[in-house]
Amino acid sequence: MKNNTRSQDLFYLNRALELAKKGAQQLAGGPFGCVIVKNDEIIGEGHNEVLGSHDPTAHAEVVAIRRACAQLNDFQLSDCTVYATCEPCPMCLGALYWARPARIVYACTREEAADIGFDDAFIYREIDIDPAQRSLPATHVPMEEASSFMKSWGEQESKSMY
Amino acid sequence: MKNNTRSQDLFYLNRALELAKKGAQQLAGGPFGCVIVKNDEIIGEGHNEVLGSHDPTAHAEVVAIRRACAQLNDFQLSDCTVYATCEPCPMCLGALYWARPARIVYACTREEAADIGFDDAFIYREIDIDPAQRSLPATHVPMEEASSFMKSWGEQESKSMY
Repeated sequence: MKNNTRSQDLFYLNRALELAKKGAQQLAGGPFGCVIVKNDEIIGEGHNEVLGSHDPTAHAEVVAIRRACAQLNDFQLSDCTVYATCEPCPMCLGALYWARPARIVYACTREEAADIGFDDAFIYREIDIDPAQRSLPATHVPMEEASSFMKSWGEQESKSMY
Repeated sequence: MKNNTRSQDLFYLNRALELAKKGAQQLAGGPFGCVIVKNDEIIGEGHNEVLGSHDPTAHAEVVAIRRACAQLNDFQLSDCTVYATCEPCPMCLGALYWARPARIVYACTREEAADIGFDDAFIYREIDIDPAQRSLPATHVPMEEASSFMKSWGEQESKSMY
């Protein structure tokens, strides 16, 4: 049935939507689901669990990334496709950049998330503002010892990157 | 000793640096630490654990947020200050927006992270690019059923937000 990319995309987006509905019904969190696929097989999936777990990082994409990485025993999602019912928020997009899948497919947009009260679009706008001027202000306190530690860590020949 | 904000900031940044050094020494992950403080008390802390846990989301800030929220039994970090040895990457900054602490204090910058090979500055630049044009491409596949589910979820009077 999944004889081309378009029908494959819709197949897995439908599975993500199923998860979103399940999570919402269980009051686990917001109405979001995510499925991660490698070689036409689901290797990790999840729905938002922020309310149930009291974990603000438990968005559907983060939950699915953690499960898929545990499944692969790897911190990289090489050659994977990530299906999300809604455009990833900046946290989830950042998580996806660190996990490095091949591509992302999403159904609803950040504007649709904003329309039902979520901060995604707001956070996207905040990111571009100077850290000290944001609504969540970030203060830069330079520390010579922290800078020199980072630098010496970077100079190690044996360091592992991720 | 911690008789003003500046000395308090340096006190907790030093603790975060201690954690960063410990994590690096244990090869748990990159050279990053984080401490979350409420009412002059540490309620959650951690260092990067990406390598040890095979979890690309296990940055110091995310680890500390999850622990602090578990400690408070709440998905919000109201009135907390977050101390990080390095400017939060977009994933961690997004996580902080969802957790809503009062402020962030950091020592090293995203440029210092880039200098030792981390993608923070690169991801900050990518976020502003149209999703379909990014180096990690995101394809929008609109789905009427997903949009109408989000919308009807948003119309519930009893919905919990986070």
